[in-house]
Amino acid sequence: MTANGAYRGIFPIAPTAFLEDGALDPQSQRRVLDCMIDQGVDGICILANYSEQFLLSDAERDSLQTLCLEHVAGRVPVIVTCSHFSTDIAVTRARRAEAAGASMIMMMPPYHGALLRADDEGVFEHFAGLAGAIDIPIMIQDAPLSGVALPVALLARIARELPRVSYFKIEVPGTAKKLRALIAAAGDAIDGPFDGEEGITLLADLDAGATGTMTSALMPELLRPVVELHLAGRRDEAAALYAKLLPMINFENRQCGLAACKTVMAEGGVITSDSVRHPLRPLPPETRQELLRMAAELDVLALRWGH
Amino acid sequence: MTANGAYRGIFPIAPTAFLEDGALDPQSQRRVLDCMIDQGVDGICILANYSEQFLLSDAERDSLQTLCLEHVAGRVPVIVTCSHFSTDIAVTRARRAEAAGASMIMMMPPYHGALLRADDEGVFEHFAGLAGAIDIPIMIQDAPLSGVALPVALLARIARELPRVSYFKIEVPGTAKKLRALIAAAGDAIDGPFDGEEGITLLADLDAGATGTMTSALMPELLRPVVELHLAGRRDEAAALYAKLLPMINFENRQCGLAACKTVMAEGGVITSDSVRHPLRPLPPETRQELLRMAAELDVLALRWGH
Repeated sequence: MTANGAYRGIFPIAPTAFLEDGALDPQSQRRVLDCMIDQGVDGICILANYSEQFLLSDAERDSLQTLCLEHVAGRVPVIVTCSHFSTDIAVTRARRAEAAGASMIMMMPPYHGALLRADDEGVFEHFAGLAGAIDIPIMIQDAPLSGVALPVALLARIARELPRVSYFKIEVPGTAKKLRALIAAAGDAIDGPFDGEEGITLLADLDAGATGTMTSALMPELLRPVVELHLAGRRDEAAALYAKLLPMINFENRQCGLAACKTVMAEGGVITSDSVRHPLRPLPPETRQELLRMAAELDVLALRWGH
Repeated sequence: MTANGAYRGIFPIAPTAFLEDGALDPQSQRRVLDCMIDQGVDGICILANYSEQFLLSDAERDSLQTLCLEHVAGRVPVIVTCSHFSTDIAVTRARRAEAAGASMIMMMPPYHGALLRADDEGVFEHFAGLAGAIDIPIMIQDAPLSGVALPVALLARIARELPRVSYFKIEVPGTAKKLRALIAAAGDAIDGPFDGEEGITLLADLDAGATGTMTSALMPELLRPVVELHLAGRRDEAAALYAKLLPMINFENRQCGLAACKTVMAEGGVITSDSVRHPLRPLPPETRQELLRMAAELDVLALRWGH
């Protein structure tokens, strides 16, 4: 956290642990959180897409939120994702998260399926509804999954007119360029320009002014120094370290997706099973093998945490 | 219903009634169902996209399902929509619907946002999971909103290998052509080739072999004779009647969407408010005016039902 109280650093997404039969696995879930704190994360994001939020019932969301916030118990800040097409339901979720101890809300613009979107005014109103209902900061997640194009002018307007919305996680094609344009347009109204997507564009995004990143929980202990070195002005060291990690980042981002972190954590004894919920599929054996080989080579903490 | 027990005819979607403040309106909801039964529908579909299902919480889904099935009380068959990206959650929803008295389950293939889809095998497994879990028929909804392309070969395979999946609601560009191809490929395994989309392609779809349609509840009493005449071999009369209704169908489908039925039902005293949930918007005044003018000209039942 900076002197003015802004969050910066690495805020990885906690995977949701399932048993083989697909049920939530609370015991493994607590171990995920403990492992992440041991990884030295600056904060934890729950119920994100990499947490398979789109495969959860509302009741499961509630139960996970309670479990995670109770178990983290203020050791690090927790960001709770509350995206829903309905503004009222998103607001209800956010209020409940704040009351339960969330430090920040992350939300995508409203979207459903391939076609249902709000227009720019609807997006603004969606975030305005949220901003008026809670007292913790809000992070907009700008990701291709929503299918919503969020122009820099709209994001800058939201940052200026809705002071509560002060974090912007950009993970679209051309993120560095968009971060740079957004900072130029409304930098003084933004506490945290972030990136995401496993850190696949992290160096370029830090160069563009990002002060935080939301990766998976695969190897935040190795990625955090990249951010710290860069923010400390030691760009060359950051770049050298990043280059060393990039093959693993690339393999996670392009070959594995959300299953990578679960596979490593299961192998490392953090969680009981690497199950993802159907119709998602586990990694094919060849991919799994190469992932674990690379993770072992980098000696990632999650691969030995439980042993 | 035909001699072999297959459902045919018109199975419109019940809109979900909200109060001005966005809360569910159970009293209006019951009146929607009574009005639809007075419209002479062959059955009612609930929790569909035209019911704003994507704007409901799980708890609201449950409460609506209970209310609708209790209130219809077997007067007509009720189709319950259970779509969810998670196969397990879709199965849980379907089991609950069957236990509560649903006559059929409607389900889209798994989809989330602009990008998350299952492959063909995942789609097959999704429906196989459902088919193995319940004893009532299943209708696949093949609509552009999902962003999933369902090839005729896949649908035919599902029809043949999963006898429980015997209704196919097709509402994609080229529906008539797709229905014809599907009937040629697996007609003996299909109890109900249906169309949807407010009936905007109804005549061509009946010509192609459709035996049912899922429209809105705006004017099923006027649309049902089109289906009945056509199924009775009186194609000329069906076409003449359809031509008379087409301007209204066209205006609903292309200018209004799901708000049309709610607007007419509110004006007709069926429901208290025509509210749709934010970020959806009510109809602009000019559109509303023309809609009501056209509905009055056709003397649709919903416009006078409550007066």
